[in-house]
Amino acid sequence: MESSSIAQEFRTKSEDNPLPMSLLQFKEHMTSIVKRVNKALEEAVPSQHPMKIHEAMKYTLLAGGKRVCPILCIISCLLVGGDDESVMPMACALEMIHDMSLIHDDLPCMDNANLRRGKPTNHVVFGESTAVLAGDALLSLAFEHIAAQTTNVPADRVVRAIAELGAAIGSKGMVAGQIMDLEGEGKDISLSELEFIHSHKTAKLAEASAVCGAIIGGGSDVDVERLRKYARTIGLLFQVMDDVLDVTKSLEVLGKPASKDSESNKATYPKLMGLDNCRKYANELVNQAIEELADFDPVRAAPLYHLARYIVDRPR
Amino acid sequence: MESSSIAQEFRTKSEDNPLPMSLLQFKEHMTSIVKRVNKALEEAVPSQHPMKIHEAMKYTLLAGGKRVCPILCIISCLLVGGDDESVMPMACALEMIHDMSLIHDDLPCMDNANLRRGKPTNHVVFGESTAVLAGDALLSLAFEHIAAQTTNVPADRVVRAIAELGAAIGSKGMVAGQIMDLEGEGKDISLSELEFIHSHKTAKLAEASAVCGAIIGGGSDVDVERLRKYARTIGLLFQVMDDVLDVTKSLEVLGKPASKDSESNKATYPKLMGLDNCRKYANELVNQAIEELADFDPVRAAPLYHLARYIVDRPR
Repeated sequence: MESSSIAQEFRTKSEDNPLPMSLLQFKEHMTSIVKRVNKALEEAVPSQHPMKIHEAMKYTLLAGGKRVCPILCIISCLLVGGDDESVMPMACALEMIHDMSLIHDDLPCMDNANLRRGKPTNHVVFGESTAVLAGDALLSLAFEHIAAQTTNVPADRVVRAIAELGAAIGSKGMVAGQIMDLEGEGKDISLSELEFIHSHKTAKLAEASAVCGAIIGGGSDVDVERLRKYARTIGLLFQVMDDVLDVTKSLEVLGKPASKDSESNKATYPKLMGLDNCRKYANELVNQAIEELADFDPVRAAPLYHLARYIVDRPR
Repeated sequence: MESSSIAQEFRTKSEDNPLPMSLLQFKEHMTSIVKRVNKALEEAVPSQHPMKIHEAMKYTLLAGGKRVCPILCIISCLLVGGDDESVMPMACALEMIHDMSLIHDDLPCMDNANLRRGKPTNHVVFGESTAVLAGDALLSLAFEHIAAQTTNVPADRVVRAIAELGAAIGSKGMVAGQIMDLEGEGKDISLSELEFIHSHKTAKLAEASAVCGAIIGGGSDVDVERLRKYARTIGLLFQVMDDVLDVTKSLEVLGKPASKDSESNKATYPKLMGLDNCRKYANELVNQAIEELADFDPVRAAPLYHLARYIVDRPR
């Protein structure tokens, strides 16, 4: 299994199984993707002088996150007929950017968080200045990695994907969400303000993950736009469920203090709409996301179907 | 003059003048380039919600720096036969990255600087968290801008230039210099350690400026490598002269406290080799840089010749 490509593995499984992928097959497929992504991420950061910056980058990058962005990128690429090897640099870049946003978000001048994924945050271990620079370096490496390592893909697709990614994470995207999140702290914010925050802070990178995967894979404009809507919706869904989990989970399971957001007086979906309405809203979002998959081949679209469901059903 | 391209203006002047460009013509040429770069930079950052982040980005980006990176990029592109319009997004991206590095460098956890270009630094005006995000947003915008706005250039050149730029500013480039600079504070560092810092912190971006300009302009591999050496050398030269100026200048002329580096016990070229040896070293660097121009057409190479000389001869 290690030597065959993810695409090959998916095709084989789909042929064995006349119905779209079972949940168990989906989980195996995801585990296999995550394994390959982690291997590619390990190889993406050099071990060279100055060691401290590379250690700081690897500390967060290789800490074993959920790898949602790389997964979304790869399964979107496979869906439109691309292959996983040519999209792997893009998938890794998305994780680098996600992790850079975590490192900077956790800084004392931002959320001032000491724990992340059950471990001390980057600046706690390496110091604040190194954490700022590790984020900057991950962001730079992300774009370098896409441009230097993507092979067997027409250059115009690579350029288009880079333009999408850059727009998604800057002042019109992820950063816009982060700044409004900080501005809203300690204030009464409305549901539409919360929606702005999450549709930018979380959903823009999810959107870019699917869109860039589809562009690299050679998807049509129609395919790309369907995947954009799908990913934007599950990006929001992810945040709604994260807020719900935050209310209902405890430190040992999550690896971060439960209800930290509620203690810090931060606006969350459960606070603004109540837990029951959150679950209803989450189900609406799942259905919206799945609707966007209707015109794709159901076998190929199966992982995206399962991913949307999994975000709601993940263990709590 | 505003409507004609920089390339046209340069060709006309060169035809009028049988000798390579005079110093006066060079200065006019630079003024004209800076004017166009400033106009392009103003147009590159949107004015939209959230206003605060866009104001913070513009505050530093439009504060009127020397625009050395865009100049180097444009004159390298023109040298190899490219045109200024197609290289303008790359030139602007280089300035965005330079300014992002200034914003992050000035942060309290880094150099903790309150003044830059005679004005309060970004975090003093907008707060620390916004300054971190403004830097992140400028870095993202830089790559988006190149990928989305570069026209009439084959996509493979754009991809190659992005790979060069990403490598130049990350953990193997600019960030490596920044981290070693911070690590060296308050310590006795050697001349070779100082050289590592500046050849990464300053010279890597200068190198990328010339190299990316030449790639976008369609220069041969030999041209690109000559310009890489030229730019690396004048990048170092710039730093040597900056250290020299820092010793010899006062607040009202520089817009930042003179001898700030020497007060903070920071290693500088004058401290490690003495002022006279600095001037000798600077002249060696100028000659090395100019040697790399020997095989280019002297008329086309004239701006690069003058730029190298100007870095040493600028008013003090």
